[in-house]
Amino acid sequence: MRGKFITLEGGEGCGKSTQLKLLADYLQNKGIEIVQTKEPGSTPEGKILRELLVTGDKDKFDAISECLLYYADRRCNLTKVVWPALEQGKWVISDRYADSTEAYQYYGYDKRVPLETLQNLYQIVAGDFKPDLTIILDIEPETGMRRSFAKAATMAVKELRFESRQLEFHHNLRRGFLEIAEREPERCVVLNADADIETIHQKIVEIVEQRLEI
Amino acid sequence: MRGKFITLEGGEGCGKSTQLKLLADYLQNKGIEIVQTKEPGSTPEGKILRELLVTGDKDKFDAISECLLYYADRRCNLTKVVWPALEQGKWVISDRYADSTEAYQYYGYDKRVPLETLQNLYQIVAGDFKPDLTIILDIEPETGMRRSFAKAATMAVKELRFESRQLEFHHNLRRGFLEIAEREPERCVVLNADADIETIHQKIVEIVEQRLEI
Repeated sequence: MRGKFITLEGGEGCGKSTQLKLLADYLQNKGIEIVQTKEPGSTPEGKILRELLVTGDKDKFDAISECLLYYADRRCNLTKVVWPALEQGKWVISDRYADSTEAYQYYGYDKRVPLETLQNLYQIVAGDFKPDLTIILDIEPETGMRRSFAKAATMAVKELRFESRQLEFHHNLRRGFLEIAEREPERCVVLNADADIETIHQKIVEIVEQRLEI
Repeated sequence: MRGKFITLEGGEGCGKSTQLKLLADYLQNKGIEIVQTKEPGSTPEGKILRELLVTGDKDKFDAISECLLYYADRRCNLTKVVWPALEQGKWVISDRYADSTEAYQYYGYDKRVPLETLQNLYQIVAGDFKPDLTIILDIEPETGMRRSFAKAATMAVKELRFESRQLEFHHNLRRGFLEIAEREPERCVVLNADADIETIHQKIVEIVEQRLEI
């Protein structure tokens, strides 16, 4: 049987990576084989794209180039990691997927890239394939950014290209994720991410068990 | 007045780079300001994409990822190099442009990427913008490959990812360039590149003077 594809989405500092690990551990303890992945940067080539995309000057790419690079990375993630694992019956959990591109490039950048272009790119790269479940961790941008800068202070490579944008960008981004969730309620669930780690984890487990019938 | 955009196209070892320099010198001597560019790799970000694309294992990217990366590089080339120069009235000569993507990805790879997808990507990245003149240097793949390997032997970074493909790929590629030229005779001219450098240069000069009315 084909595995399930779960994506975690949300703005900077919403706690996706932490929650992904907790959920992966939980499902593994239930006997489900889990593959953890992330975008950008789940493959050797993707890692180079990730460094191009998340470090350096915020204006080094225009919005169209940026979208093409995210979609190139996504195609690598799908063809080399996600699809082969699902075929083998494993479940895949991804830290970010296509909703992030839409939220950042369309909503965050105030519609600099037409939604149609993004949907067009999605079709080229993934066809009709979609996540079985998307959990959106929703947080006030002010809180998320504080967390994100605190985390970056402990890292060698500062992945702060997006954090360096104005707060308005991050408010647009948040609104973007919420609008996506409203548009596709059968796939997306929004969770308040301004709570302690264990509380959020328990809520995620509940949602996964309900929606994916474990 | 807006400058002219000339592209040089052709398979591996056809002599594009040599002819580009000669043509640039010739036009500069006529008092035309020239910007030389190339794809992939005309910008700092493009150089990283170029290394990703032209070195390493031939199967590290699937055809779709590869197209997206070429188009991301193309967008950087257009927005940062080509369009600003043309706006300033300079002429731009590019070592490869979109015909290469079509010839390699569609014809070379035996239609693994639908032509419609490539046209779709072109529209996203360049809209209705097109070269004023495209010169296709046509050469027997056997001859071109011999030249290309001889050149690589003198270089520190071996850009041989495409040369490592079977000869059949390069025959398809050649046929691709010729079909593109047949389809767009008002833009494209095909030149036999199996002649001495000076003879080819003289022919290129003739074509440029005729077509672009110098």
